[in-house]
Amino acid sequence: MKKERLVVIGGDAAGMSAAARVRRERADVDIVVFERSPHTSYSACGMPYYIAGMVETAEDLIARTPEKFREKYNIDARVRHEALGIDTAAARVRVRGPAGEEFWEGYDQLLIATGAHPFCPELPGSEASGIYGLSTLESGIRVRRAMDAERPQRAVVVGGGYIGLEMAEAMIRRKLDVSLVTRGAQVMETLDADMGALVSQALQEVGVTLYRGETLTGFETREGKVAAVVTDRRTLPADIVILGMGVRANARLAQEAGIPLGVKEAIQVNERMQTAVAGVWAAGDCVASHHLVSRRPFYIALGTVANKQGVVAGANLAGGYATFPGVLGTAVSKICRYEVARTGLHERDIGELGLEFISATIRSRTRAGYYPGAGRITVKLLAEKGSGRLLGGQIVGEEGAAKRIDVLAAALHAGMTVHDIVNLDLSYAPPFSPVWDPVQTAARQAVKHV
Amino acid sequence: MKKERLVVIGGDAAGMSAAARVRRERADVDIVVFERSPHTSYSACGMPYYIAGMVETAEDLIARTPEKFREKYNIDARVRHEALGIDTAAARVRVRGPAGEEFWEGYDQLLIATGAHPFCPELPGSEASGIYGLSTLESGIRVRRAMDAERPQRAVVVGGGYIGLEMAEAMIRRKLDVSLVTRGAQVMETLDADMGALVSQALQEVGVTLYRGETLTGFETREGKVAAVVTDRRTLPADIVILGMGVRANARLAQEAGIPLGVKEAIQVNERMQTAVAGVWAAGDCVASHHLVSRRPFYIALGTVANKQGVVAGANLAGGYATFPGVLGTAVSKICRYEVARTGLHERDIGELGLEFISATIRSRTRAGYYPGAGRITVKLLAEKGSGRLLGGQIVGEEGAAKRIDVLAAALHAGMTVHDIVNLDLSYAPPFSPVWDPVQTAARQAVKHV
Repeated sequence: MKKERLVVIGGDAAGMSAAARVRRERADVDIVVFERSPHTSYSACGMPYYIAGMVETAEDLIARTPEKFREKYNIDARVRHEALGIDTAAARVRVRGPAGEEFWEGYDQLLIATGAHPFCPELPGSEASGIYGLSTLESGIRVRRAMDAERPQRAVVVGGGYIGLEMAEAMIRRKLDVSLVTRGAQVMETLDADMGALVSQALQEVGVTLYRGETLTGFETREGKVAAVVTDRRTLPADIVILGMGVRANARLAQEAGIPLGVKEAIQVNERMQTAVAGVWAAGDCVASHHLVSRRPFYIALGTVANKQGVVAGANLAGGYATFPGVLGTAVSKICRYEVARTGLHERDIGELGLEFISATIRSRTRAGYYPGAGRITVKLLAEKGSGRLLGGQIVGEEGAAKRIDVLAAALHAGMTVHDIVNLDLSYAPPFSPVWDPVQTAARQAVKHV
Repeated sequence: MKKERLVVIGGDAAGMSAAARVRRERADVDIVVFERSPHTSYSACGMPYYIAGMVETAEDLIARTPEKFREKYNIDARVRHEALGIDTAAARVRVRGPAGEEFWEGYDQLLIATGAHPFCPELPGSEASGIYGLSTLESGIRVRRAMDAERPQRAVVVGGGYIGLEMAEAMIRRKLDVSLVTRGAQVMETLDADMGALVSQALQEVGVTLYRGETLTGFETREGKVAAVVTDRRTLPADIVILGMGVRANARLAQEAGIPLGVKEAIQVNERMQTAVAGVWAAGDCVASHHLVSRRPFYIALGTVANKQGVVAGANLAGGYATFPGVLGTAVSKICRYEVARTGLHERDIGELGLEFISATIRSRTRAGYYPGAGRITVKLLAEKGSGRLLGGQIVGEEGAAKRIDVLAAALHAGMTVHDIVNLDLSYAPPFSPVWDPVQTAARQAVKHV
C-alpha cells in the first residue's frame, strides 16, 4: 500500500511546526518540505540582532536544520527547492531543485506556508545594490556581510514599523549615522499618534535622525550602488538602505492555483487552517487571520501567529481537530533602552468600526518609585463607552514596561472590562512594580471615564 | 446640622486608600484616622530594601504624610493615636493619644484597617533585644538603626516565606553571614516542593546557609541581647535575628467589640467590605478574603489586596456600590538575581479540595535563546484533569521571569483552560521572550496530560 504523503511548501515557522506536529502523531505519513532558501526553522525576528553583532553567527538563529528534521523527525526537508506551481486537480506541485531540474511531486494533503516578502515599491533606482529588505535568513546574511565587508557609514531606514525600528537600533549599535524616513506623522502606525510620538522621541534620543511625513520617491545611485534616498522633501546620502515598509503575503502560488484570497491578498483559511480547496491547507505569514476584537479579517505577519497556526494545521493534518481562534495584533519591540508594545484595536481601528470609546493614559513606574532602577512607563487603554469593555492597549517605557501588554492581551481574550482589570490579583513586590501595577492604574483612570 | 463622621482605625494602605476615596466623592464628611505608629501610607514591602541600604531614608517609603492628608485631602490623620476599644452600641471608639490621654470619638461609620502583626512565638529568650519582626515602618527603622549602629556580623532569619527571603537578601547585601531556618522541607511553602527546591537552591547560591526542616525552640541571650538561635537540631550564633514566620490579622479590637471573625481569626467581611455589625466596615490585612479558585475563605496579607479593598470600602462608605471579588494569592519576590512568583492553588490546596489535577513543568528562557542575557525560567502549571481549567501557576527564574505570573493570574480570573492559554496572542520579540512565551510552552505541555 502506498503511504499517505504530505507536501509542505515553505520550511520556516508555520511549515515546520506543522510538519513536526504531524510527525509526532503519525509515523506512517511521508512528509516532504520544499524550502526555496538554504535554511529551515530560523528566527527571522532575530536578524536585526545578528546584523547588530549581538548574535554572532547566522547559525545561532536556526532552531532546526534540514539534517535534524531528516534524522530526528524523518521529515524530508529539501532546501533550495522552489515550488513553481500547484495543480490542485491532479494534487501535485511543480518544483525546481537546486540544479535547476524541474519535477512534479504528488500529495495527498498540501500545506502552503510560503510566508511573506518585504514590500518594495518600484521606484527609480530601486534595483541598485545596497538596498535591502529583510525576509529570509539569506537576506539577513547579505546585510550582515555588507556591514562587515563594506563598513558603511550612513544608513537610511525607510519605514517606521517594527522592522524599521529594530534595524535602526542595529545600525546605531554598529555606530553608523542613522536616518529613518517614515510616511506617517509618527513612527509606529499601529499605535495612536500620542503614543507613537513617545516612540519618535525615544528614537531621536538614541541618536536616530527622524524624517516624518515624508514619502520615498526613489534612490540616487552610483555605479549600480545606492548613493542616496530621495523623498518628496529631501535627498539623504546613504551607504546602505533598509526597507521596512511592511510585508505582503506570498500568495501568488495559491492564487494561480485558484485558491481564494482574503484580506490584503492573503490566503483565506477557516479556523482549522483549511483553504477553500479540498486537501489544501495554509498557515503562517501567507494567510489572513481573524481579529478577536473587531471580529473582522485581519492580516498580520508574526512568528508567534505562524507557529500557532502551524501547530493547528499540523494537528488537523494528522487527523485531529484543532482550531486557531484568531489574533489581537499583539506586538512588542525594543529600541535600545526603550520598549514599545500594543495589543487589540487602536483609535483609528475603533473609529472604523463605529464604536464609541473612551481612552485613559497614565504615566507610572516599572518598579516601586523608591526602588533603584524604577523606569518610566506610559500606558494607554481604550475601552468601549458605557460597557467598559477593553478594546486595546499600548505601552511605551523603559526596562520591564513592555511585557505588561500580555496582561491586556489576556484580558482582551477574556472580554474583560476595565473594571475587571482593576480587580485583577496581579503580582507586586517593589523590584517588579508599584503597588498598583501600571496597567491597573490605567484601568482605574479609564473607569472614571466609562 | 452636624456633619457625618467617618472614623478609620489604621492609617496605612487600606485605611488611607479608603479615606482618600471617600474624600474624592464626598466633601461633606468629617474623616478622622487614628494611626498607632508615627507614619501613614508607607510601603511596608519596601522595608527590606531600606534595611539593605538600597533605599536611603525611611521617608522614601512614605507615599503620603499626615500633613499631606490634612492639607491636600482635608483628612484628620492623627498618628500616635491608638484605638483601645470599639463600642458599637454607642458608635464610638476609645482612643489613647500621644500624651497618654484617653478619649471617646463618635462615628457614623467606622472602618477597621488595623493590619496584621508578625507572628512571634513565646519561646525562651524571645524577649531579648536584637530579635525583630517587620510590621510597621517603625519596626523597619529599628532594624536599619541596629544594622547601622551595631554592625552585626551574623544574621539568622527564621522563616522561609517572602519576608524571610527578602530579609535574607537584605542581610547578604549588607555583607553579613546569613543563615535561614525554615520548618518546611523547602523554603516558600506557597510553592510546591519541587519549585520550592529551586528557590532553596537560589538562596544557597547567593550565599545563604539554609537549615530546612528545623523548628525554632528558643534563643540564647547574653545581657538581655540575643546571642544565638536554638532549633530542635542546632544552636546558631546570631548578632541579629529576623522573624519571618508569617503574620496574624490584628483583629482583637474587632473581636472584643463582638464583630465576627472568619478564617485565620481575621475579620469577616462581605464583598462590599462590610462586617456583620451595621456601620462597621473592615479592609486590608485584618480581614479574611475569598479565594477565586477554591471559592473558599482565604487569608492573605498583601499591599495590593489592602489597597484594592480600601478603595472598595471607600466607594461604599461614600454611598456608592462597589465589590471586591476576591484574591488568587498572587505573589512575587526577588532574591538577588532570582525571581519567584506564584498564583492560584498549589498541589496541597488542590488536594484539600479533592480535585483531580495534572501538572506540567517546563524549563525555558526569558528571552530568545540567542539573545544576550537570556536567563533561565521554570514554569509549573496545575490544571483540572479533564476540563483543563487552570488552577495555579508557579515561576522561578532569572531577570524577567516572575512578572509573567500576571498572565496566569488574568487567566485564572477569566477561568481559562490550558488550551486557551496556548492560543493567547502574547507579545514576542527576541529581547523579551522566546517565540512561545514560557507560560505557553508550559500550557502546551499541560495540554498533553489533560
